[in-house]
Amino acid sequence: MAEQEKQTQRTDVNSLGEFGLIEHLTQQFPLLNESTKKGIGDDAAVIDNGKFQTVVSTDMLVEGIHFDLMYTPLKHLGYKSVVVNLSDIYAMNALPKQITVSIALSNRFSVEALEDLYAGIYLACEQYGVDLIGGDTTSSNKGLIISVTAIGQGEPDKLVYRSGAKVGDLICITGDVGAAYLGLQILEREKQVYLSSPEVKPDLEEQAYCIGRQLKPEARRDMIVQFDKAGVVPTSMIDVSDGVASELFHLCRASRVGAFLEESGVPIHPDAQMLALKFKLDPITCALSGGEDYELLFTIDPKDVEKVKYLPDIYIAGEITAADDGVKLHTKGGNIHPLQAQGWVHFDPNKG
Amino acid sequence: MAEQEKQTQRTDVNSLGEFGLIEHLTQQFPLLNESTKKGIGDDAAVIDNGKFQTVVSTDMLVEGIHFDLMYTPLKHLGYKSVVVNLSDIYAMNALPKQITVSIALSNRFSVEALEDLYAGIYLACEQYGVDLIGGDTTSSNKGLIISVTAIGQGEPDKLVYRSGAKVGDLICITGDVGAAYLGLQILEREKQVYLSSPEVKPDLEEQAYCIGRQLKPEARRDMIVQFDKAGVVPTSMIDVSDGVASELFHLCRASRVGAFLEESGVPIHPDAQMLALKFKLDPITCALSGGEDYELLFTIDPKDVEKVKYLPDIYIAGEITAADDGVKLHTKGGNIHPLQAQGWVHFDPNKG
Repeated sequence: MAEQEKQTQRTDVNSLGEFGLIEHLTQQFPLLNESTKKGIGDDAAVIDNGKFQTVVSTDMLVEGIHFDLMYTPLKHLGYKSVVVNLSDIYAMNALPKQITVSIALSNRFSVEALEDLYAGIYLACEQYGVDLIGGDTTSSNKGLIISVTAIGQGEPDKLVYRSGAKVGDLICITGDVGAAYLGLQILEREKQVYLSSPEVKPDLEEQAYCIGRQLKPEARRDMIVQFDKAGVVPTSMIDVSDGVASELFHLCRASRVGAFLEESGVPIHPDAQMLALKFKLDPITCALSGGEDYELLFTIDPKDVEKVKYLPDIYIAGEITAADDGVKLHTKGGNIHPLQAQGWVHFDPNKG
Repeated sequence: MAEQEKQTQRTDVNSLGEFGLIEHLTQQFPLLNESTKKGIGDDAAVIDNGKFQTVVSTDMLVEGIHFDLMYTPLKHLGYKSVVVNLSDIYAMNALPKQITVSIALSNRFSVEALEDLYAGIYLACEQYGVDLIGGDTTSSNKGLIISVTAIGQGEPDKLVYRSGAKVGDLICITGDVGAAYLGLQILEREKQVYLSSPEVKPDLEEQAYCIGRQLKPEARRDMIVQFDKAGVVPTSMIDVSDGVASELFHLCRASRVGAFLEESGVPIHPDAQMLALKFKLDPITCALSGGEDYELLFTIDPKDVEKVKYLPDIYIAGEITAADDGVKLHTKGGNIHPLQAQGWVHFDPNKG
């Protein structure tokens, strides 16, 4: 009754894109409370509590959209659901302290399956020192949906937003990127093999690194600790969930700057490099457009370069330029061309 | 592959019940952070931030389980999704300040439909003075899932837990209870009529009160303001989402006490009374076992009775007794029998 009566106009949700949709729906919401320092638009929201600031991030994972239980063990899924949220808190240069976890699931899941999921959540809580403080467990008509909210704490003058990059700042990337995307390609291929010939036992040993990056990613807590010890506060930061290129665009847009990215500075793991070639994919495309690495992309003031350059696992990959210069990629071959922002598209078995 | 290999044992999720399931899954999680004052087990979790305490509550609403879009306008649904979470924050004697909203939806929903949903969220934010500070919008394979987390602020010595009731305290209920359940019965009946004879236009004018309680409930912010003005801090409190009986059991269990509830003290709206009789239901059963009223059930120290008894819309409905005395109902007919805790069972069209 209610639903049928209205809507003369019908705009497809996909026409706006994920970020466009959120922006469209929330743009008219004012911030009413003095304690709300930052609302929608960064890795996390910021609430002022006097001495400390509370940082809040939330994510929803949907079976068949964000994960496939054919090749995702539930324990890994529980672990990853927590880690992807913690990653957003670290990307604010803050430390996560608490999480809430809400789960909707159909009756095909047993209590034992849920125990596996919670064993992974438990492990992540232990590993990152966060407390599970709340949640909801309810029925769904189809599949498994997990919604996690992470709450962290940061010092007001040390929180890092997407918007702080300045012309001349250096662009840094932690760890390596692209491997999680390639791990997903392996798992998807093996799924197809399994579906057509279930008797074939796949040997995934060689691809352990990339598969591990996809199934059990880690958040870069160590970097936040390192920054603190080294006395460095990045000028801007974002976590790499949708791919370096797409995240760099977010950062440049928020900071109103451009960027000059060096292909040679983008860290790629040798296993990812080899796997990309096996799949006849360009490794740098996987590194820039593949998602789910949960590394940190950040900028530092040039005065801090001495402090950062001896820190392990941080790679300087370019420089912030004026907004008018756009976002450019300097290839190993010596060409300079506009960077393509191709965010990670959630795989959807029904959409092909 | 992952899912098929394991699980020799299979326990049905429903065998533990909603609360049993959460308890079972989370009982071994320790609290690691000093700032975590209260984890799972109350209306909301509590985080210490020095002068203030941050109160966090989260809820997930699933189409076909918690709501039916046949008779729930999306704007009302957006409003209600927020209100049910705010109600949990008020039940801690705290004031909500921020919310996050995550939504998963199938492609049968248009942008215009989502705009309606967010119009309701907006209205609730405005009405209760809270800020929307984050969220996630993603695809689902079926239906609409809404996950809301509310964050509030309370003074450390004024937060009210479920566990503070003492023998001799008075049991109070705000507003009236049972109407939301009866509103749901009307809507379900009209849905069946519509499905068999779509040309019949229902006249719901007479049932406006009960239907309004179901579709557009309000949280009792006014009570928290009243308590503050009157200088009263309840000894324990819980919001009535699953029915008075079930909530009273939660409160008694957490406080390790019993209760003596007076049927004559349980407030029922005249419209709900009439509607119950029309449906051949016992009004007191609807009031005690019907859910979704979002009123407050609380206890006060007898010394505060003078302060409370002149406050509008608060009804004294019994007394806290020793745990050994159990939880008893004193009927209008003069009988005393153990209270039946029959929480609200989420309607599920597939389960009948």
